[in-house]
Amino acid sequence: MTIKEMIITPIAIVDPPLLNAAGLHAPYALRTIVELITTDNISGVSEIPGNIEIDAALASARELLIGKDPFQLNAIRHTLENVGTETAAQRGDAPWDQRKLVHVFSAIEVACMDIIGKVLGLPVVDLLGGRMRDRVPFSAYLFYKYAGAGGKLGFGVDPAAGGWAAARQAEALDPAGIVDQARAMYTEFGFQSIKLKGGVFEPRAEVDAIIALREAFGPGTPLRIDPNAVWTVETAIRYGKEMEGLLEYLEDPVRGQENMAKVRKAVNIPLATNMCTTAFEDIPGSISLGSEDIILSDHHFWGGLRTSMELSRICATFGRGLSMHSNSHLGISLAAMVHLGAALPRLPYALDTHYPWQSDEVITRGRFKFEEGAVMVPREPGLGVELDRESLARLHQNYLDCGLTRRDDAVEMQKVVPGWTFEAVRW
Amino acid sequence: MTIKEMIITPIAIVDPPLLNAAGLHAPYALRTIVELITTDNISGVSEIPGNIEIDAALASARELLIGKDPFQLNAIRHTLENVGTETAAQRGDAPWDQRKLVHVFSAIEVACMDIIGKVLGLPVVDLLGGRMRDRVPFSAYLFYKYAGAGGKLGFGVDPAAGGWAAARQAEALDPAGIVDQARAMYTEFGFQSIKLKGGVFEPRAEVDAIIALREAFGPGTPLRIDPNAVWTVETAIRYGKEMEGLLEYLEDPVRGQENMAKVRKAVNIPLATNMCTTAFEDIPGSISLGSEDIILSDHHFWGGLRTSMELSRICATFGRGLSMHSNSHLGISLAAMVHLGAALPRLPYALDTHYPWQSDEVITRGRFKFEEGAVMVPREPGLGVELDRESLARLHQNYLDCGLTRRDDAVEMQKVVPGWTFEAVRW
Ligand SMILES: [Mg+2]
Ligand SMILES: [Mg+2]
Repeated sequence: MTIKEMIITPIAIVDPPLLNAAGLHAPYALRTIVELITTDNISGVSEIPGNIEIDAALASARELLIGKDPFQLNAIRHTLENVGTETAAQRGDAPWDQRKLVHVFSAIEVACMDIIGKVLGLPVVDLLGGRMRDRVPFSAYLFYKYAGAGGKLGFGVDPAAGGWAAARQAEALDPAGIVDQARAMYTEFGFQSIKLKGGVFEPRAEVDAIIALREAFGPGTPLRIDPNAVWTVETAIRYGKEMEGLLEYLEDPVRGQENMAKVRKAVNIPLATNMCTTAFEDIPGSISLGSEDIILSDHHFWGGLRTSMELSRICATFGRGLSMHSNSHLGISLAAMVHLGAALPRLPYALDTHYPWQSDEVITRGRFKFEEGAVMVPREPGLGVELDRESLARLHQNYLDCGLTRRDDAVEMQKVVPGWTFEAVRW
Repeated sequence: MTIKEMIITPIAIVDPPLLNAAGLHAPYALRTIVELITTDNISGVSEIPGNIEIDAALASARELLIGKDPFQLNAIRHTLENVGTETAAQRGDAPWDQRKLVHVFSAIEVACMDIIGKVLGLPVVDLLGGRMRDRVPFSAYLFYKYAGAGGKLGFGVDPAAGGWAAARQAEALDPAGIVDQARAMYTEFGFQSIKLKGGVFEPRAEVDAIIALREAFGPGTPLRIDPNAVWTVETAIRYGKEMEGLLEYLEDPVRGQENMAKVRKAVNIPLATNMCTTAFEDIPGSISLGSEDIILSDHHFWGGLRTSMELSRICATFGRGLSMHSNSHLGISLAAMVHLGAALPRLPYALDTHYPWQSDEVITRGRFKFEEGAVMVPREPGLGVELDRESLARLHQNYLDCGLTRRDDAVEMQKVVPGWTFEAVRW
């Protein structure tokens, strides 16, 4: 059995106007759906962040992949890693850098593991050593946002009607709005910990939102804030100290491992990152500097599910915690995250997910449900999801229609705030 | 399908009088054969170093294992790691320390992977991401030795008859004897790199043996020496400098990570270890001190095949090489080493094996063959070996008859050199 086809489908999914340090989410978030089909007509799928350059890299991986055995993941990875390095003439000719390679390999690996699971009759979690838990917990991911739910169609829900569908459309620009959003999300999904995407307003306002969340939810609900590294070290230390005792962890208050290490020494809150330590190449610096306590991994960025298990061993070895980062995504990515989350030896923190903010879906089972904030680990072979081809066609048409080819939150923000520019360190 | 039985069989295999820093190999080396049988009557096997305390730990794991799904290795490991920690009354009651646990889990994991492979129709290498190579290279493992081939029966081969069977019985106590041993081993097995077990004679004599090997085999045959940490830092630096340009790597010249780091700074030869960095717990010290260039892993000591893949990622992340250590062993351990060696992303060094020094076997296919120093990776499901029950019974009887319950090379040495005592640092 070998791979006979690789189908790469960029899609655009409706996304709300969520604010973050990089600007504003566009009305559509881009994802790329990859489908591998074997000579036995077994189909495996995966989903990665959408980006026209990475789609091009995926396309150039296609000819390398056709004819390969999907079980031979080590060899496939080796092939991708060594393209353009075999001969002196080729040296440096690889169609991807390391950042693209991890995305490409993640897309291929997850789809292959879906195939392997289907062939063997095993859920993907069992290809990772088996399930440590049946439910994988996620956190409520709060965003400052403008009114509206994104997309050209919107959702036509009256915010006054209440519930998550309404709250998804509501404005949230201050502590009261954030608390309302959290309550709606809590009621709908049962999340038991809360993350606030910060870096949008000046730190005083965001810390006040954390204080308001603590007052609203009490000490039994772990809180986190992620200013996406736009704080100075001084700001991070000042507000970090204020939030000691309030936060489960503080995510990327500052930019770079050196600055993170300075904050970590000064503030008695665990620091988490998906910005300063984002690849295996960053691990030695992380260890020598002591830049964070928790690595927020992401199988899309770390080269797949099996390397994420290896990252878990590195974290255990060096006394770091491991949890998961997310971007706007659909159920194929969620399924992969859940299988991985089920296999990890330890899962001390609820994982991040943007999933409640999306309303589209591309799988036949419809949207995943959260119960008490957790997703049940699928028991079907492979990922436990199947492509809904009608939805895929519709979302691909969205992609063609919307004209976006890569994420650019700054451009979107400038439509609302003319002249807005991204600042790597803002406060 | 669950595990319905675990059979633990200690065996004693004929071993030659090999000299090393800890003394002398006894006429028998001890191994323990573990067989797991599922409710579907599928049998999985593994082999670990024999030791009565570890056998007892294995026996106490039996009741935890019966009824478990062999595919659920993460959960099995979790169970073993957490025995005696669940309640305050139990705390600290675990029947094993970390050193025993890795052996116990290695035995269980390899046998489970043999079962999984048989159930799925996949060789174990394909459970580790698939084969990077079809042949796994080993090195000629030379030992200073007394005449004879060990065991109460001996082998009755006339050393004058030549060949490896004769050379196995020959004395080798000086450079000429070592070169003869290497030639015989090279002719029989085709090994293309050579390791000398040192730490037996004063360093001048052992370095002279390396020089003699270099003269006999030329610069195209990588050489290594392993004094098993009985050299002082000064000795290691002095003779290390002399061997610059002669050695592929220098293995454990001195004891402890700090001393290794000192030698590594002073000598321009890669340092390898299976003594100063032998567990994940040792990795942070290894990284901060810079104690070695190459970790000689051993799946029996590192908790199995999957954790060895994780160790491989750690080594790649921190710029360390990875190769393999061995003890006297039979074909079940060799098969596991070969499957792992086939899956490792990189295999820059030929692996260690004592296998040529053993003549017994416990598998139906008979002894593995080396071709040009390499073992073909089995293509059968699982490990690709089946227990030969007659041999197992005979080797277990050897165990009962020989009276040994753990390895003690010092006691054996004292029978030859009365009053001999082990010295952790000798020269
Ligand atoms: Mg973040
Ligand atoms: Mg050694």
